[in-house]
Amino acid sequence: MSHQRHGSIPGRPGAVTAFPDLPEATIARLPEYLRALHNLDDGADTISSEALATAAGVNSAKLRKDLSHLGSYGTRGVGYDVALLIEQIEYVLGLDERRAVCLVGVGNLGHALAGYDGFASRGFKIVALFDADPAKIGERINGLTVRHIEELGRIAADESIAIGVIATPSSAAQTVADELVSAGVTSILNFAPCVLSVPANVDVRKVDLAVELQILSFHEHRKASLTALPGGRVVAGTQEAVGS
Amino acid sequence: MSHQRHGSIPGRPGAVTAFPDLPEATIARLPEYLRALHNLDDGADTISSEALATAAGVNSAKLRKDLSHLGSYGTRGVGYDVALLIEQIEYVLGLDERRAVCLVGVGNLGHALAGYDGFASRGFKIVALFDADPAKIGERINGLTVRHIEELGRIAADESIAIGVIATPSSAAQTVADELVSAGVTSILNFAPCVLSVPANVDVRKVDLAVELQILSFHEHRKASLTALPGGRVVAGTQEAVGS
Repeated sequence: MSHQRHGSIPGRPGAVTAFPDLPEATIARLPEYLRALHNLDDGADTISSEALATAAGVNSAKLRKDLSHLGSYGTRGVGYDVALLIEQIEYVLGLDERRAVCLVGVGNLGHALAGYDGFASRGFKIVALFDADPAKIGERINGLTVRHIEELGRIAADESIAIGVIATPSSAAQTVADELVSAGVTSILNFAPCVLSVPANVDVRKVDLAVELQILSFHEHRKASLTALPGGRVVAGTQEAVGS
Repeated sequence: MSHQRHGSIPGRPGAVTAFPDLPEATIARLPEYLRALHNLDDGADTISSEALATAAGVNSAKLRKDLSHLGSYGTRGVGYDVALLIEQIEYVLGLDERRAVCLVGVGNLGHALAGYDGFASRGFKIVALFDADPAKIGERINGLTVRHIEELGRIAADESIAIGVIATPSSAAQTVADELVSAGVTSILNFAPCVLSVPANVDVRKVDLAVELQILSFHEHRKASLTALPGGRVVAGTQEAVGS
């Protein structure tokens, strides 16, 4: 728990001086920059925007713009202070506090999520597992015991759970979301392929695995159109109208 | 396999007359519209943009703009033709062909993905599973036998695999990506938390579960800043600068 949670990081040049209002796409890229910064293996104190952009898989102009939202402009010819940039991004993402996560639904996907060791190393701790299936209650996964969903309200309060992960079938997801909201959870990560209705103060992120494949399918389809058209109607790198 | 793959859908009013050049965000929403259209339970032939937007969880202005990219404008006072819109979206997403998918890495997450029944119902068939761990080779999951990664090239060609899913640890992901590319796979869905280097003609989508949690953490942090500030410095619904 940081005492700096609601204000500036004092006494650091270029530090975040206000809680920034960031574009959603920038927010989504900050974790990538953070991962890249943590994985630097040369031990240097500074990094150029080009090197960081390459490590994070984005273009450097976009990276500079994203980081300027944090008040971080780097130094010409030197680049960004690595330690300071890590501190700024972790502050904005709220990672200076470890957030308690619960997971509802311990089928195949729930098992995989409960056993995913990438969470703890990046500031998240799964503190409770829930299911409605009596056959699953009491099962031990990664050191946690699966509880009945009816215990959600009590445990969420006891453990100060901030984030709920829904890995149930779609048919159960809205009911689970309602229960999470009633229990005071204000962020939900939804793996069920359905739209959840929640109050305005609750944030929902959705991961729909088939949607990801459908997006790739679009690109497969597009590429096939570009390479297989008759008569050379496509100029390399552009997409011309095909058909009538 | 549709003979209309590279051109227009002929003879239908408002049909796609060219392969559209769509914004990435629109592409990402098309699967949501499609899911919502397939889940309509009232059996009506038409749907208003407002009703479809609600079912898909987006605002209706954004939906109308997205669909206008497909040449679909609906009819004033009537809405969109449901069957036609489904046909248009499935055409653009290339879902009129079932695409063969292979999965590399059958740990916890790989098991969950191999058993995920949401793929087949939405046009994707996992046709092969691979791993490098001798203890896993030969294991049966959901009717498929886990093969050694060395067989990837041969099987990818035999099965016309278009999409490869990487569910290995980060340390193995780039090697696997290289092998997929060598085998002619041109779309990759990467669950390993790392950046892949691939040729320009290969599309990569990444699902990093911890990144999703970090994005939620940002919103938790933001909400805490808004509700816990002293002295009522925040106007409802806006984010004022805090700190100095």
